[in-house]
Amino acid sequence: MPHESPGSPPSDPPGPDASRRSDRARRAILSATRDLVAEVGYTRLTIEGIAAAAGVGKQTIYRWWRSKAAVLFDAILEVNSHEQGSVDLPDTGDLESDLRLVLRGTVAALAEPANDRLQRAIAAEIQTDISVAEELVRRLLRPQLDACAARITLGIRAGQVDESVDADLAVELLFGPIFHRWLLRTGRLDDQFADNILALVLKGLRPH
Amino acid sequence: MPHESPGSPPSDPPGPDASRRSDRARRAILSATRDLVAEVGYTRLTIEGIAAAAGVGKQTIYRWWRSKAAVLFDAILEVNSHEQGSVDLPDTGDLESDLRLVLRGTVAALAEPANDRLQRAIAAEIQTDISVAEELVRRLLRPQLDACAARITLGIRAGQVDESVDADLAVELLFGPIFHRWLLRTGRLDDQFADNILALVLKGLRPH
Repeated sequence: MPHESPGSPPSDPPGPDASRRSDRARRAILSATRDLVAEVGYTRLTIEGIAAAAGVGKQTIYRWWRSKAAVLFDAILEVNSHEQGSVDLPDTGDLESDLRLVLRGTVAALAEPANDRLQRAIAAEIQTDISVAEELVRRLLRPQLDACAARITLGIRAGQVDESVDADLAVELLFGPIFHRWLLRTGRLDDQFADNILALVLKGLRPH
Repeated sequence: MPHESPGSPPSDPPGPDASRRSDRARRAILSATRDLVAEVGYTRLTIEGIAAAAGVGKQTIYRWWRSKAAVLFDAILEVNSHEQGSVDLPDTGDLESDLRLVLRGTVAALAEPANDRLQRAIAAEIQTDISVAEELVRRLLRPQLDACAARITLGIRAGQVDESVDADLAVELLFGPIFHRWLLRTGRLDDQFADNILALVLKGLRPH
């Protein structure tokens, strides 16, 4: 991210104060974006609205991001990296317990009210806007799915998962039912459901 | 459905002509509803718009349906019952082939462009409108999920599925990944994907 402090002339190299102000502005913009999209939806989200809510000039946002989708996904990624740690899955050697942590984390993230609204605004938007969907998949979903597949691949090497198993497919079996319930609202999302899904999927993955 | 012919005085009992006209009006309304929601989305769908597109009076629609959600789900159910037959699953004795038929049918239904737009309009709407979600689950999703669970229960009785398996959960393992791909646009939906999901799920369901 370029160093820049709203309302003051650019300095090069920036002093520690400029850096701090710049970081504060950035966090205010991302936080305002999360609040706004949850409140008004993606379609009515505007750079002007974000700037006003964050107390910065519109140009500050345009200097750092090329589109509202770009701001939005940085805003989501900021929260996700706080909540869920890095995208790498733990490898304690116990596949079931490592996957349980991730699935329960996913359920908890979807259940949290502000995050629920935010993610639903995006879920609604991608039904008609393919470019936002591509951004979502590339920046958020694919890294999570791939990290989970990598953990299952370690399980194959450790002999805990049958070597014929397609790790990418197994991951969709784990996440699919959770997002199916959440997106179509067919049932309650809780740890018990995550654990039940995991147990049934693991039955099919074991070496035979 | 009450017998009624738009633009003519009610007759009791209605003659065959009135019945035919009434049926024609009903089908025109449902067809116009499907076209319109795919085109403008659920939010901008109106009874006035449907009436105009179907060439009937607004009052004709209000006489038969209490809300636009009610018209919409009749419109969807009319298509689904044509395309997929009744909600009961086939029971040929071969569980895998019966389930394959249903999963491939689901994939085909989602891939069909007009149906894709229609279902995406609803998927977007239910992210914010809980009452439409409840209607969708009650009238469309739950019956399909239950019918599939009933077929798996027959498989348990026939000794093809382990008796410890929760049939409802197994169904979510089958449909979850398909809707996950479709709703979040994470990958391609085709027969091969449906078959791969089915094969992996069935591994976990077999008696041990």
